[in-house]
Amino acid sequence: MPGPMTIGVDVGGTKVAAGLVDSKGEIVRKVRVPMVATADAETGFSAVRNAVTELVGDAMPREVRGIGICSPGPLDPRTGVVLNPPNVPCWRDFPLGAETERAFRVPTRIDNDANAAGLAETLWGAGVGYSNVFYATLGTGIGTGIVFDNKIYWGRTGSAAEGGHNTIDYNGPRCGCGKRGCIEILCSGPAIARRARARIVESHLPTKMLEMAGGMADRVKAEHVGEAFNAGDALAREVLEETADLLAIWLGNVVDMLEPEIMIVGGGVAQLMSSFFGRMKKTIPEWSINPRAHEIPLVLAKYTADAGIAGAAALCR
Amino acid sequence: MPGPMTIGVDVGGTKVAAGLVDSKGEIVRKVRVPMVATADAETGFSAVRNAVTELVGDAMPREVRGIGICSPGPLDPRTGVVLNPPNVPCWRDFPLGAETERAFRVPTRIDNDANAAGLAETLWGAGVGYSNVFYATLGTGIGTGIVFDNKIYWGRTGSAAEGGHNTIDYNGPRCGCGKRGCIEILCSGPAIARRARARIVESHLPTKMLEMAGGMADRVKAEHVGEAFNAGDALAREVLEETADLLAIWLGNVVDMLEPEIMIVGGGVAQLMSSFFGRMKKTIPEWSINPRAHEIPLVLAKYTADAGIAGAAALCR
Repeated sequence: MPGPMTIGVDVGGTKVAAGLVDSKGEIVRKVRVPMVATADAETGFSAVRNAVTELVGDAMPREVRGIGICSPGPLDPRTGVVLNPPNVPCWRDFPLGAETERAFRVPTRIDNDANAAGLAETLWGAGVGYSNVFYATLGTGIGTGIVFDNKIYWGRTGSAAEGGHNTIDYNGPRCGCGKRGCIEILCSGPAIARRARARIVESHLPTKMLEMAGGMADRVKAEHVGEAFNAGDALAREVLEETADLLAIWLGNVVDMLEPEIMIVGGGVAQLMSSFFGRMKKTIPEWSINPRAHEIPLVLAKYTADAGIAGAAALCR
Repeated sequence: MPGPMTIGVDVGGTKVAAGLVDSKGEIVRKVRVPMVATADAETGFSAVRNAVTELVGDAMPREVRGIGICSPGPLDPRTGVVLNPPNVPCWRDFPLGAETERAFRVPTRIDNDANAAGLAETLWGAGVGYSNVFYATLGTGIGTGIVFDNKIYWGRTGSAAEGGHNTIDYNGPRCGCGKRGCIEILCSGPAIARRARARIVESHLPTKMLEMAGGMADRVKAEHVGEAFNAGDALAREVLEETADLLAIWLGNVVDMLEPEIMIVGGGVAQLMSSFFGRMKKTIPEWSINPRAHEIPLVLAKYTADAGIAGAAALCR
């Protein structure tokens, strides 16, 4: 007989992924169903229902102890209500937690993806053995999660840990969030591509990035920067070194404010930056007043594509 | 008979202040003795002993439940050991907590001044009714304290909440801490004076700041900026408006990362800036992605000159 399980549900704007996760954080089985986020609330919710049903069938297995759901925010993790996510316009003040409990008769928790993924890393991933964890997912955007004493830190209304929009350059480029020089507008995937394009245009240096983008600077993407770096391209290296330094400045602030036991970074940009972790580990202490900043591990997340499922499942542990 | 009391001891580089504090945070009685911080550890400690003895006499009153001590850091609040404070060179790995317990036979706690003052504000001051508090003391330097669930947040080794050195402008002026553009080098008292002097020199505008400093720009201090502003000086207003905006950018980061229930600012610069709290309350939400940032109160601390004594006493509650 299998041990206790939780179901993790990862809601996106066009699909819902769900997984059955065991007590060690292993994803035993997973499914994915389409999501229509632009119709009414019930249509949106039917995607969650379909995903869970496809995962476990019509009768909830006895070993399932709860359902955790990562949903685009803002949301209130205490009440389980999704407020008004731009990417899921069908849910406005929608009681996702309560509806899920009603549908499946198991305890349900909701939270945003970065908070949940940070918890999964703490319980089952790169943060095992630590109880005070700073997690960041670096990708199209930058999300963060704070875990204290093995619990997600929510703040006043569940909106804490939005460190991806902490500014390190108030004169810097303006982000979609309205702020200038936040780390997302400097170091997300699109931001790396933007800086690479600017360097290509202003330097006039030959670069493999340009080849990889078909000769058009305005088509250079973060992936091209990574591929060009792997192929020995000097300009691509410069762009990624600058990215590493900017991330280190930001993480230096995190060390000074939170002094976590470990810092875990996940997401596509974290993978892209993995060759520069050594540089970041040297630079973070230069941007922290903590004399023991160098002792704080900076590591890659365990979970990659399944971080949402694992994170959601962790919410019910 | 008086209720339970705690003794708060505030250690500085040249003096030790101590106070008897009741269960409501009122300072019933206080004393101050000189401190020689450059001799040996025992000489330094004798100032603590003298202060407590002068406060309560040779026999510890029965109603005293403990002694709290604010000491310059770095220190380890968990073990009560003072590590290597630049301002108190006589103490190197000095077990201040244990020595105090041995001398007076009451439980002793130590912490740094901003952490302690943040706790005093939470228990007895401007933060009463809140359990998740961000505190900042703005003066010659900028120190911060984080209180979660009515307890000081320490981080990995007790060195968390050094938000005064969080950078908001990594290209900005270099601080003594080694970082560029941290809020201390932008908005401490000396930093305000530095920015005022630069504005005076570059603008060539007439200003009362110059009169107040005897006609010499290089003698302008933060106090002159405040006095000139109160006397209607336009350039002084500009300098303080810029200070307000820089503090708001920094506090916007705090809201996004920590989402505290309240933000409390104390210290001389907080007093100086009190006319600009309205401006800061409008600007913080522009530098936060939290849609409810405007709901978070920004208030002046209750404790002023006695923040150290009150904070130290709060450590034993």
